[in-house]
Amino acid sequence: MGDFPENCWYVAAWSNEIDDISVLDRTILGHRLALFRISTGEIVAFRNRCPHRSVPLSCGIRENDNLRCGYHGMLFDPQGQCLEIPGQDLIPPTARATTYPAIDRAGWVWVWPGDPKLMDETLIPDINPLGDPSFQMRTGYLHYAADARLIHDNLLDFSHLQFVHRNTFGGGADWSCKPDMSRRDKGFRFERWFPDIPPPPIFRSAFPENARMDLLNIYEFDAPGILTVRTAMQPAGEAPRKAIAIDDALGNFSAQAVTPETANTAHYFFSIGLPRSEPEASLEQLLGGTLAAFKEDRTIIEAQQELLLKEPDEPIARTALEADAAINQMRGILRQMARSERNAQSNRPSGATPN
Amino acid sequence: MGDFPENCWYVAAWSNEIDDISVLDRTILGHRLALFRISTGEIVAFRNRCPHRSVPLSCGIRENDNLRCGYHGMLFDPQGQCLEIPGQDLIPPTARATTYPAIDRAGWVWVWPGDPKLMDETLIPDINPLGDPSFQMRTGYLHYAADARLIHDNLLDFSHLQFVHRNTFGGGADWSCKPDMSRRDKGFRFERWFPDIPPPPIFRSAFPENARMDLLNIYEFDAPGILTVRTAMQPAGEAPRKAIAIDDALGNFSAQAVTPETANTAHYFFSIGLPRSEPEASLEQLLGGTLAAFKEDRTIIEAQQELLLKEPDEPIARTALEADAAINQMRGILRQMARSERNAQSNRPSGATPN
Amino acid sequence: MGDFPENCWYVAAWSNEIDDISVLDRTILGHRLALFRISTGEIVAFRNRCPHRSVPLSCGIRENDNLRCGYHGMLFDPQGQCLEIPGQDLIPPTARATTYPAIDRAGWVWVWPGDPKLMDETLIPDINPLGDPSFQMRTGYLHYAADARLIHDNLLDFSHLQFVHRNTFGGGADWSCKPDMSRRDKGFRFERWFPDIPPPPIFRSAFPENARMDLLNIYEFDAPGILTVRTAMQPAGEAPRKAIAIDDALGNFSAQAVTPETANTAHYFFSIGLPRSEPEASLEQLLGGTLAAFKEDRTIIEAQQELLLKEPDEPIARTALEADAAINQMRGILRQMARSERNAQSNRPSGATPN
Repeated sequence: MGDFPENCWYVAAWSNEIDDISVLDRTILGHRLALFRISTGEIVAFRNRCPHRSVPLSCGIRENDNLRCGYHGMLFDPQGQCLEIPGQDLIPPTARATTYPAIDRAGWVWVWPGDPKLMDETLIPDINPLGDPSFQMRTGYLHYAADARLIHDNLLDFSHLQFVHRNTFGGGADWSCKPDMSRRDKGFRFERWFPDIPPPPIFRSAFPENARMDLLNIYEFDAPGILTVRTAMQPAGEAPRKAIAIDDALGNFSAQAVTPETANTAHYFFSIGLPRSEPEASLEQLLGGTLAAFKEDRTIIEAQQELLLKEPDEPIARTALEADAAINQMRGILRQMARSERNAQSNRPSGATPN
Repeated sequence: MGDFPENCWYVAAWSNEIDDISVLDRTILGHRLALFRISTGEIVAFRNRCPHRSVPLSCGIRENDNLRCGYHGMLFDPQGQCLEIPGQDLIPPTARATTYPAIDRAGWVWVWPGDPKLMDETLIPDINPLGDPSFQMRTGYLHYAADARLIHDNLLDFSHLQFVHRNTFGGGADWSCKPDMSRRDKGFRFERWFPDIPPPPIFRSAFPENARMDLLNIYEFDAPGILTVRTAMQPAGEAPRKAIAIDDALGNFSAQAVTPETANTAHYFFSIGLPRSEPEASLEQLLGGTLAAFKEDRTIIEAQQELLLKEPDEPIARTALEADAAINQMRGILRQMARSERNAQSNRPSGATPN
Repeated sequence: MGDFPENCWYVAAWSNEIDDISVLDRTILGHRLALFRISTGEIVAFRNRCPHRSVPLSCGIRENDNLRCGYHGMLFDPQGQCLEIPGQDLIPPTARATTYPAIDRAGWVWVWPGDPKLMDETLIPDINPLGDPSFQMRTGYLHYAADARLIHDNLLDFSHLQFVHRNTFGGGADWSCKPDMSRRDKGFRFERWFPDIPPPPIFRSAFPENARMDLLNIYEFDAPGILTVRTAMQPAGEAPRKAIAIDDALGNFSAQAVTPETANTAHYFFSIGLPRSEPEASLEQLLGGTLAAFKEDRTIIEAQQELLLKEPDEPIARTALEADAAINQMRGILRQMARSERNAQSNRPSGATPN
């Protein structure tokens, strides 16, 4: 996973995937994790491999806040310290479960797969209106048999909307035009203004026939794969552009996270919602249409990944288009972050190397 | 696929696999193709990989005679030239789909996977009585999880008939005898004359009990894997050998093509038919028996392939039999053709190298 | 399979798997075998690969005591000598099927995968009360997607009983204590004495509520993976330890064999039984509980193997426990046996090398 930084937060699970009894087996960036929740409500993330004989700790049994390996019964506390070895009095210092920093923030479970000493809770992205009382939000998940960066590519070039999503999001030719794009610290902000367009297919039934609207779309995507989308719509020509108050009267909002699982597979976590003032039926329509569209993306991207794996000696692109700018820059940002980490690690005195 | 020549014609599909709406995804000799038919009836064979982001073009959408990539919408004409890039005015010269020569000839779709500059339509083998009005022909297909050369081996040594096909073709011990074999330009002609034998099991019901017949079999097999079989039968002893007029009163006829898909998988296209004068019921019996027999071959050959892959360090043969002569020569012919191509290519001035 | 000796006997099948008509396809230590039974009742083990074109001989056809290859019909006698080549008079000396020594002993089919010249029938382990008239024995089998040594590990450290088998064998904490362990020629003998314990869950219904018993367990495990278990129980405190006559009034008996199939898969053959004096219902209870427990082992061990394969650069153990002593010694015994074989082979004059 050398093309992804490790010293940052990744979404590893939805909070409600981690219950009070089971241990969740989840891999991110090639790190296989055993995730469970303790009595404080906090999440514990162990490396999913017992230090004794390499049995997955997710095969183990919860005992209060501790986890007992399901094979020979070593008992570990939430810090990974071994508390008991059945049949043996002495607990050797090597009898430790490896742990990862993990934080449950407003429904998203974030894990820091890199050096725990560098962990910084303030770096968790703020994408959390899951708990915002003015919003009705829903969460979804898709597993991808594809390199996470192919999903980034998709999310950074909306010229695919009119072809991949013609029956769902149904973007017209406008979506192929260059958006207002600006760099952020580790990503991009895109702003799109589409005056006087028909409503997207998934919303069409909510509008009068031949309705026209103005649409404002604000899209932010940051490494290592976190994004938000804000979309506001109003009847065409009713007000000047500035009058679409994207924060107050949000049409819809989505926050999403793409997390590499292995080099060729990924997790895609997405939330989407509408203001509470909107009827439940509109939300259902939005959710159904969004899931259908996201599956359209997955079909294309998994076909692309399969071809890349079958013909590995070919470059991914034989021709470069203008719309690839953000794609290429994002790959550069990730590579640069990963390289900086490796340099910092090799410059560190060896005594301080985390194990 | 270094053991197969590329500068020759291979059967890639049956004509009726390629319709007016879809794009067929088909791999031959490791080349993944996107096949479609344009308004003239001609077949277009693209490399099934968009030059932009490596998405299979078979995921695309037909627009008249052009093909639009299903991801970002690049539009290619039948010559592979890009006509349109959504959101971008300039079309760079690298924005081309790679094309292969492809020709639909009497129901067989032939593709030339090698250098298009060397393509020669006159080299298409003439195996086409599919359209012969005096014949009722049918077509069939089997996919093989096996190296195409193992299928060649099977087709070049009929001593297997009495063991593999004892309940279908049911060849007796005669089929293990050496046939009259003569070399052709890129293959072999075998002639077999079996006087006074019982009819094959699949035909037995059409004959009186204890019937005996004389059978003449002419079999031609040419690199890279094209063959025809002509079989004529008449009541035993009714006429001298020469009187079986194999071209006029053909008992049955089969044309077949074995095309490598990958190094360890293959396509097996076969046609088979009888003179129109024969009743439909005889044709049904022939087809059913032939398919059953071809599946008997496949069972053995796939078991052989599986073993060869599991024990790759062993030679395929620890003992050589006389019946292997044609098998070994055909492998030599293919190797020689492939080697000549590589030599010709490396002697060519680099400016003329096809891309 | 460099970590296992080849010049010794392995269980390849249960006798009743090899019938009078079929040919059994079975792999042990990476050797693919074709096993069949001849009219004397003896077992023949061929290498499952025809010397002609590498078709599995298990696709062949039995002809009395001989085996005919299913492809081109070469006929081999039980010694592997070719008797007939259809269509050819001369039988070349290379036309031989490779054979392995194989012996059916009281229901267990033993095969010697190494040098046939070194085969010694007296080395077959005596684990055979399958035929003992005083016992009612049953046989079982599990296929493992795991290295055989991981199964050995499990069988050599009973501290897992109280965790893996808490609802079946249900070993209490006592099973984690160090047993009386003594070395044998190629393995170990363990003796365990548990006075005043509740009966195991799978037997509990046969005893009065709150019953207590004394249990004696004698366990012998020898390379390359053969073991017997004798267990005797009597009401607690009824007699001193010596009075449990383990050979006369055996509570239950099990003989088992672990045979590597490939480097990462294995066969697990097990027999288990009770004295004939015990009611049939007790045997059924024992069999059901044993199979359930063995599947509990397999679940853990296959999860362990999967993890080891996914993370191959990690050592299996980051911490060593006292209970690992027998595990590590057994791996050493196997390695030493394999190394001795290789040394003996390389010191042998080349003319004497077996082929």
